[in-house]
Amino acid sequence: MNEQWCLRSRPVGMVKESDFELVQEPVPEPGDGEMVVRNCYLAFEPAMRGWLDDVPSYLPPVGIGEVMRASTVGKVIESNHPDYAVGDMVSGMLGWQKYALASGTPGPMGGLTKVPEGVAPELMLSALGGTGLTAYFGMVDIGEIREGDTVLVSGAAGATGSVAAQIARLKGAAKVVGIAGGPAKCKWLVEEAGLDAAIDYKSEDIAARIRQEFPDGVSLFYDNVGGEILNTTLLRMANFGRVVLCGGISSYNEEELPPGPANYMQIVIRRLTVKGFILIDHFARAGEAIGALLGWINAGELVHAEDIQEGFENTPKTFLRLFEGQNLGKQLLKIADP
Amino acid sequence: MNEQWCLRSRPVGMVKESDFELVQEPVPEPGDGEMVVRNCYLAFEPAMRGWLDDVPSYLPPVGIGEVMRASTVGKVIESNHPDYAVGDMVSGMLGWQKYALASGTPGPMGGLTKVPEGVAPELMLSALGGTGLTAYFGMVDIGEIREGDTVLVSGAAGATGSVAAQIARLKGAAKVVGIAGGPAKCKWLVEEAGLDAAIDYKSEDIAARIRQEFPDGVSLFYDNVGGEILNTTLLRMANFGRVVLCGGISSYNEEELPPGPANYMQIVIRRLTVKGFILIDHFARAGEAIGALLGWINAGELVHAEDIQEGFENTPKTFLRLFEGQNLGKQLLKIADP
Repeated sequence: MNEQWCLRSRPVGMVKESDFELVQEPVPEPGDGEMVVRNCYLAFEPAMRGWLDDVPSYLPPVGIGEVMRASTVGKVIESNHPDYAVGDMVSGMLGWQKYALASGTPGPMGGLTKVPEGVAPELMLSALGGTGLTAYFGMVDIGEIREGDTVLVSGAAGATGSVAAQIARLKGAAKVVGIAGGPAKCKWLVEEAGLDAAIDYKSEDIAARIRQEFPDGVSLFYDNVGGEILNTTLLRMANFGRVVLCGGISSYNEEELPPGPANYMQIVIRRLTVKGFILIDHFARAGEAIGALLGWINAGELVHAEDIQEGFENTPKTFLRLFEGQNLGKQLLKIADP
Repeated sequence: MNEQWCLRSRPVGMVKESDFELVQEPVPEPGDGEMVVRNCYLAFEPAMRGWLDDVPSYLPPVGIGEVMRASTVGKVIESNHPDYAVGDMVSGMLGWQKYALASGTPGPMGGLTKVPEGVAPELMLSALGGTGLTAYFGMVDIGEIREGDTVLVSGAAGATGSVAAQIARLKGAAKVVGIAGGPAKCKWLVEEAGLDAAIDYKSEDIAARIRQEFPDGVSLFYDNVGGEILNTTLLRMANFGRVVLCGGISSYNEEELPPGPANYMQIVIRRLTVKGFILIDHFARAGEAIGALLGWINAGELVHAEDIQEGFENTPKTFLRLFEGQNLGKQLLKIADP
């Protein structure tokens, strides 16, 4: 039998385990050009919270009763598709389920990618997955990172922020500072990821620390958090600075939209450019990003972290870890051996 | 005797006439390389409100007891400067005073410009002045106006907005709609300035009207107002749209910073680019802007409006008209015949 976590009800405010329900159904039979994939790892991202709300967005919401949309890696166990053989490891948007029917046809979130020889499957969901690619395009294309930039990254110990911050370092930023929650994450950012400094938003005065670390202002702010961290940083931007809005985890679970950043007129006074972006617009260049990221990883210049939980029964609970700030690096759930 | 309006006290909340005081002193004597200018017209801009607050900004605040900073046009009545002769009409930042000592040396807000032959002096403060140039660089350089854009301009009957909206039309926008207050301004925008439509924020449902006028969203929003108009428009932007933040008159007189736009995450979802700018960074290309604007004016393709009050004693009162939304086009005060 297949097992699937489906959306039971739209969350109101903080997402709860009970917003999902475990459903059993027979393992699907592949038709012509289809295959069955046994998922091994499920990946979790804050943006998935947005897919649960019935509001217009860049993707349609997950429907009530539908399998929760998510990236996974798994192994092809049956195939009627000429390009995929039994035993192939693949990654794609195959959802919160043990067995997935796949055609390989790209959807709005991309198609099915074979895990390259010698690459750990879980890496396809972290530094080489959606969050790593988001970091790459956000920092390189949207942020236009350049030598000498003074860079601040929020959510810096998360899957996207940790890669974005390291790309800034690798691209010659004069200074890279991350904001994260708690001493373990901050220590990892400095000692493992090679950042110049980390600011612990749980115990430090963020405004004072930003002022201290950036006496001439932040030239590039890569924001995954929004809310007060964005508002505070707007007051510490350098003239002609850039703000990359990658996400806003601080508000994803709010029942009512919280107020926006009161300091937004700093965008005028400081002549800032604020850009938002979504990974789906950049898939055509995924190969370039994966090549660059893999090169840095293989050269030992870019570290990646995965927080790997276990057990399919823990799927919704693992999703909640993101909003509790428990994960260091990519939040994954292992549900079968590759 | 010279008369000057000086800053008496920093305004708290809405600026008041009593924040300024009228001071008399002898008409200045020009030293070597200096001249005396008899101001004929004073110009008023919402941004001047920001110069009264003692906060870090792109210009130092006006000091208590100092003559209020403002653009003017006037006539040289005494000159020890080789480049300026008695009788020359000039424009520059000569402040709220009848007689100004000038050296011609450019400050952060530019230098002294001779009024070209055949150009009405008041035009140097409106369409060819700081607000006209702001409209030009904001729409052309920052907004990158292009053919086919669907353009919304707030504060559209103001000195900057009215020129910005017309530049959009002249540059081939598919649609240009202005937001303004009251039927007279809205009528002027459509019948005189040639906009496709105008939205009266005082009597209409702005969100519904924007949706109606822009079924496929706004590709370029030129915002002079901020606050709720910005927040509402963020929900109606087209994917990959651009927002030019030129100003935020809605909050300039607020005692406490009002909340920012709650819908700011639309910047991510819609992949928007939001840019702020300040005219002072673009002075080097003032000649290009004046040439383009004057060409359109002389060809009858760009209309300009001035609201001209009279009498030096009415200077602070005339400034307040901006925040009461009384002016259509450029707010000026005539204090002497050119």
